[in-house]
Amino acid sequence: MSINPLSISQEGRRRVVIESVHPEVDCGRFPVKRTAGEKVTVEADVFGDGHDALACVLLYRKDGAGDWIEMPMRLLANDRWRGEFEVAELGCYQYTIEAWVDHFQTWRRDLMKRLAADQDVSVDLLIGARWMEEAASRARGADEIGLREGSRQLREPGEDLDKRELALNSDLADIMRQYPDRRFAVRYGKELSVTVDRPKARYSTWYEMFPRSSAAAAGAHGTFCDCERRLDYVAGMGFDVLYLPPIHPIGRTFRKGRNNVPTAGPDDVGSPWAIGSEEGGHKAIHPALGTMEDFERLVAAAAGRGIEIALDIAFQVTPDHPWVREHPEWFRKRPDGSIQYAENPPKKYQDIYPIDFETPDWKALWEELRSVFLFWAGKGVRIFRVDNPHTKAFPFWEWVIGEVRRKHPGAIFLAEAFTRPKVMYRLAKLGFTQSYTYFAWRNTKPEITQYFTELTQSTVREFFRPNLWPNTPDILPEYLQFGGRPAFIARLILAATLGASYGIYGPAFELCDNAPREPGSEEYLHSEKYEIRQRNLDDPWSLKDIVTRINRARRENAALQYDHTLRFHDVDNEMLICYSKIAPDGSSAVLVVANLDFNHTHSGWVNLHLDSLGVDHAQPFQVHDLLGEGRFLWQGSRNFVELDPKVSPAHVFRIRRKTKTERDFDYYL
Amino acid sequence: MSINPLSISQEGRRRVVIESVHPEVDCGRFPVKRTAGEKVTVEADVFGDGHDALACVLLYRKDGAGDWIEMPMRLLANDRWRGEFEVAELGCYQYTIEAWVDHFQTWRRDLMKRLAADQDVSVDLLIGARWMEEAASRARGADEIGLREGSRQLREPGEDLDKRELALNSDLADIMRQYPDRRFAVRYGKELSVTVDRPKARYSTWYEMFPRSSAAAAGAHGTFCDCERRLDYVAGMGFDVLYLPPIHPIGRTFRKGRNNVPTAGPDDVGSPWAIGSEEGGHKAIHPALGTMEDFERLVAAAAGRGIEIALDIAFQVTPDHPWVREHPEWFRKRPDGSIQYAENPPKKYQDIYPIDFETPDWKALWEELRSVFLFWAGKGVRIFRVDNPHTKAFPFWEWVIGEVRRKHPGAIFLAEAFTRPKVMYRLAKLGFTQSYTYFAWRNTKPEITQYFTELTQSTVREFFRPNLWPNTPDILPEYLQFGGRPAFIARLILAATLGASYGIYGPAFELCDNAPREPGSEEYLHSEKYEIRQRNLDDPWSLKDIVTRINRARRENAALQYDHTLRFHDVDNEMLICYSKIAPDGSSAVLVVANLDFNHTHSGWVNLHLDSLGVDHAQPFQVHDLLGEGRFLWQGSRNFVELDPKVSPAHVFRIRRKTKTERDFDYYL
Repeated sequence: MSINPLSISQEGRRRVVIESVHPEVDCGRFPVKRTAGEKVTVEADVFGDGHDALACVLLYRKDGAGDWIEMPMRLLANDRWRGEFEVAELGCYQYTIEAWVDHFQTWRRDLMKRLAADQDVSVDLLIGARWMEEAASRARGADEIGLREGSRQLREPGEDLDKRELALNSDLADIMRQYPDRRFAVRYGKELSVTVDRPKARYSTWYEMFPRSSAAAAGAHGTFCDCERRLDYVAGMGFDVLYLPPIHPIGRTFRKGRNNVPTAGPDDVGSPWAIGSEEGGHKAIHPALGTMEDFERLVAAAAGRGIEIALDIAFQVTPDHPWVREHPEWFRKRPDGSIQYAENPPKKYQDIYPIDFETPDWKALWEELRSVFLFWAGKGVRIFRVDNPHTKAFPFWEWVIGEVRRKHPGAIFLAEAFTRPKVMYRLAKLGFTQSYTYFAWRNTKPEITQYFTELTQSTVREFFRPNLWPNTPDILPEYLQFGGRPAFIARLILAATLGASYGIYGPAFELCDNAPREPGSEEYLHSEKYEIRQRNLDDPWSLKDIVTRINRARRENAALQYDHTLRFHDVDNEMLICYSKIAPDGSSAVLVVANLDFNHTHSGWVNLHLDSLGVDHAQPFQVHDLLGEGRFLWQGSRNFVELDPKVSPAHVFRIRRKTKTERDFDYYL
Repeated sequence: MSINPLSISQEGRRRVVIESVHPEVDCGRFPVKRTAGEKVTVEADVFGDGHDALACVLLYRKDGAGDWIEMPMRLLANDRWRGEFEVAELGCYQYTIEAWVDHFQTWRRDLMKRLAADQDVSVDLLIGARWMEEAASRARGADEIGLREGSRQLREPGEDLDKRELALNSDLADIMRQYPDRRFAVRYGKELSVTVDRPKARYSTWYEMFPRSSAAAAGAHGTFCDCERRLDYVAGMGFDVLYLPPIHPIGRTFRKGRNNVPTAGPDDVGSPWAIGSEEGGHKAIHPALGTMEDFERLVAAAAGRGIEIALDIAFQVTPDHPWVREHPEWFRKRPDGSIQYAENPPKKYQDIYPIDFETPDWKALWEELRSVFLFWAGKGVRIFRVDNPHTKAFPFWEWVIGEVRRKHPGAIFLAEAFTRPKVMYRLAKLGFTQSYTYFAWRNTKPEITQYFTELTQSTVREFFRPNLWPNTPDILPEYLQFGGRPAFIARLILAATLGASYGIYGPAFELCDNAPREPGSEEYLHSEKYEIRQRNLDDPWSLKDIVTRINRARRENAALQYDHTLRFHDVDNEMLICYSKIAPDGSSAVLVVANLDFNHTHSGWVNLHLDSLGVDHAQPFQVHDLLGEGRFLWQGSRNFVELDPKVSPAHVFRIRRKTKTERDFDYYL
C-alpha cells in the first residue's frame, strides 16, 4: 500500500485510473466464489484525464501461473467498464484489469467529427499515418504490411475520398486495436481471486436424518444397513445430499439422558455430538451403527441414487475421547488439575471438553484435525457440515479448508454457525463453501425481503452461499409450532425457492412434528439428539409428495438453481410475498407468490417488474403453477392472486413468455 | 496482499479479526481529510471466535514516525467498535487498530454470572489469581506489588466475601487492562492516513472578481491598487477569500474579442486564461495590473482585513508564452511542424496550446509547474484555484500537491473540474483540498437532497470538500436567468448554508446580472472574460446587505462551518426544502427552510427529526431567523412555515433549545 504521493522516479505518464473494481471482497483479501461453468462479470471505473479514448482489458489466469488471457471490456456509461470470463475448472483463478490511452481511436473519433463539420483534415490524415506506422512496428506478417501500406496511402499528397474511407475503415480500427501502444498502460494494483467449486456448491438439496432412528424393527438401534434401505425414500423425494449427524463413538461420562436431562439412564443412547469413547474418536464409527465397510457401502449405495453423504464434523470431545489421554495439552487445565469443560456461565456442559486453540502445541493439533477431514475424504466423503466453526480459531479454518481443497478441489464445507452476522460472514470469507442462515427466524415479508436482498444483491453474495433450513434438530421455530401443516408447506416452499441450496431435518419435517419440549422452547420434545425416534413414514399427513414436487421443480427449472437473480416484487397485501428468479442464460424464469399467514386466505394484486422477468409489457404471458398445475394467462405488471393456506400457501409459477396467438397459425398473414 | 490461506509457519493463535474499518478510502490508498482541531472517529468490526471478551485500541501517530499513541475503543453493538483521536497539527497522521482476547475480563464477566447463580467459585478464584500473576510479571512498581498481593489473597484457602469483592473490584479491572497479554494481538493490516489542513480548508467564504474591472475611472483598466480600494467592500460583506482570475500577461496571437468573437479588436483586453506573452508567463504579472510590489501590497492589505488572496493557476499557454520557445518539447507537434492547439473537435481554440503530459521531458515539465506554485507561495499566496485539473495527468497532481504541501502545509488547492463525477472524486482523492461541485445545476428538492446526501453522508465526504458556487464567469445558470432577484437570494442562501465553503462571482452576483449571451446559453452577455465591466456597487437592488447577513450567520454559528452533520427533513410541499446542521460539539444548530419556487408563495408543514437537532420532544423551542430576525415558538416535530419569495425565499433559523418557562423564575418551586 502506497499512501505517499508519487515519486518523480516512477513513470509519470501513466494517465489512466482503474478503481472501484467489482467483485472484490475486503480489498482483495478474500476470493469471490463461483462454480465451474459460470461466468465472472467484472466491472470497474476506468478513466483518464482529458477526453482521450481508452482501451481496457480484463486479464485472467488459473492458479497464479501462466500467461494472462485477455478479454475485452466495454464502456457501459459514467466511466464504468464491464468484461467477463468463464471459469471452467475447479480451483483458483486470478483476474485483474489493464487499461491505456488509445491515441488511434481518439484520432479516429475526432476525425469523424471533423469530417462531419466539413473541415480540412489533410494534416489529421498525416497524424493517422504516424499512428499506423507506429502500430506497424509492433505488428507482424500481413498486418504489418497492411498498416505500412495504409500509412503510405494516407501520406500521399492531397485529401480524397479514398483516404477518408481508408482512415475510417472499421477493419483498420480492429487491426489497430491488436497492436496498441501499451508503454504507459496501467495495471490495477491487485490480483483478485475466484474460488471455483463444483456446481453442487451452488445448488444442492439436503436431507438430514439420524441413522440410529432408521431401523425397521421397533425399538432397535438403526444401522448404516438400515440407512441403505432408507435411500430410496430419500432419493424419491429428490434430495441429493444425505447429511448424517456425527457417526462416531458416543462418550459415557456425564452422558445426557432423554430430553437433555443431566443424567442418562442405562439404556439412553446419548448425543452423537458427545464424541469419543474407549471405542475411538473422530476417525472411528459408533459400533451400534455398523462397521467402516458398512459405511463405505452406504456411501456407494447413495452415490448410485445420485446422493452424496455429508458428514458432521464437530471438533469437541467427551472426557472419554482418546485425544484427552494422548494430547492433554490440547485442552485447558484448571488449577485443580481437571480439564476445563464447556461452559456458557452459569451453564455447564461437563460432558464436553472444548479444544484450546491457544495451546502451544497448536501445530500438531491443526494437523490432527486436518487428518480427520482427509480420513473421511479417503472414505469417499466430499461434503462436510462443520459444527459450530465460530467457536474455533479463524486462522485454523482458512488453513484447513485450503489444505483439504488442495487435495480434493470438490470438497464442500457447510458452516453451521448460528451466531452474529459478521462472524458468519467471516467464516464464509475464510473458505466455507456454504453457510447456514437466519432463515429459520425470518418469517414476515419485511424480514424476508430485507435479509434475502442483503444475501443476494450485496457483496455478501460473492462469498456467502446460503443454505436454508426451515428446521434442524436444534431448531423447531415458533412459526412451525403454531402454524401446523400449512406453515410447514409455506416454509418448505420458501426455503426451496429462496435458496438454491436448502435442506430439511427429517422425517421430523415432512411429518410436521411441531411439539416443543416446553412452551417457548425451540427444542423438540423427545429430541432425537438424545433418543431414538422411529416414525411412520407413510403417515397420510406426510409432506413427501409436495417435497417431491418442489424438488422436481428445482431440478427442471435452472432459475431455482441460482441465487444472484432473486428479485422481490410488490404485492398490496403484507401477508403475501412475491419474488422471482431467472436462470443466468435467461432460459427459465420462476415466480413465487406465498401466503405467509397460515390461518387465513389472502388475495392481492402483484405488481411485477416485467423487464427483470424478460416479459414483454404488451404481450400476454402464461404462468404455470409447478405445484398445483394451474395455468393462468396474465398481461402487464398488475395481476391478481388469491391463496388459501389450507389448499396451498404458495404458487410456484414457471413463466412461459410466449403464448399462442393468431399470428402463430401458418395461414396468418 | 495475501490471498493464500495462512501458512502453518505463521502464528496460528491470533484469534481476533479486524475488518470494515471506517474511514478508509479505496482500501487505504488515499488519506481522509480533516482540519486541525477536529476529531477523527474510527470504527471497525472487531470480533474473535467463541465468546471471549476482547480489548481493542486505536493507534495513531504523526508523519509515520515515533511511537504509536493508543486510545481506547469501545464496543457499540453488533461487533462494531469505535474510538477517536484529535488531529492538532497540520500534516499527515496515521492510524490503525490493534485488538486481542482479554482473558481476565472474560473471567471477570463470567465470575459475575457464576456468583449471580450462587455457584461454587473456589476454582475460578484460583484461575483469576493466575491471570493476576501473569499481569504482575508485566507490571512494575506499585501495580506489580498490588497484583501479586491480590493474587496471593485469592489463593488463600476458602471462599469468602472479601475475595469476591477483590475479584470484582473495578480498580483491579482497570489495572489489569493496563498490563494485557498481547502476544497474540492482531494489528489491522494497513496504516491509514489523515491529511490535516487548516480550518479554512473546511470553512471558507469566497469572492471572485476581475481586477481589471475594479478601476474607479470609467473605462480605465483596473489595477491591484484599485483592488486594494475594493477590499473594504469585500471584507464588509464578510468574505475571507478573494479569488482573482489569472493575473499573468495575456497573449496576442489569436486573441479573442468581446463576447468571444474569434478576432480581437485593437483595444480588446483578451481573456486572462490566455496566458503568456513576450512580457512573461506563469510567474509574471500582466503589466496593466501593476507590479509585483503592487501585488504583494494587495496580499498584505487583504490579510489586514482577514482576507486571503487566491490565485487561479491555469496550466495552458498562448502561442506567445515563453515555454513555447524554451520548451517546444512540452507540446505536441503536428506533422506540418506546427504546435497542436486546443481542440474539442470540431471546435478549435487556436489561442491556446495544451501541455503534453506524455512528453519524454515530463520530469522537467513537472518541476517547472511545481515552481509556479512555489513562486507564488513565495509571494504569500496559500490558496490556489486550479483551472481544469482534469485535463492534466492525474499522477502529476498527486505529486505536485504533495510537494507544495511539504513546504507549505497550509496550502489549499481548489479543483475547478466541471466534469464527470468519478474524475472529480479522483482529483479530490489525489490531494485537492476543495472542489467545485454540480451545485449550480441542482435546483429541485430531489436533486439537492440526493446530491448533498451523497456529498455529506457517504464516504465521499472523507476526501471531497465541496465549495458551492451559484455562479461563475463561465456559468450563469438558467435558474438565475429566469428567476431574477428572488432566485439569486435563494441560491445564495442555499450555497451559504448547504456548504461550509461557498463563493460568488461578483459583482455580477450581488447585482443580479442575469443576462445570457443568447437564450439557452450559460455564458454572460458581455462576459468579463473578454472585456472590462465596471458596475455600480451602490445599486439599490444589490444583495450586499443579505450577503453580509448570511456571512455573519455563518461566522456566528459553528453549525454552518461543517458539512458532515447536514440532514434533510421532510416537508409536505415539493417546493419547500428543509435541512439542518449542528456543530460537532452540539453548541449550535441551524435549520434552513427555503422556497425553491421564485414565483409563488408556498407554505407547508415541516416534519423535523428532533433527535438530530438535540431538541426535546416534550419541550417548546425557539427558532430565530438570522436573516429576517423573526422569532417563533415551536413544539414537537410538525411545524408550519410559509415563504413569500418576494419578501424572503428562506428562513435560516438558529435553534435555541431552551425557552423560558415559569420554572426559570427564582421564586418558582
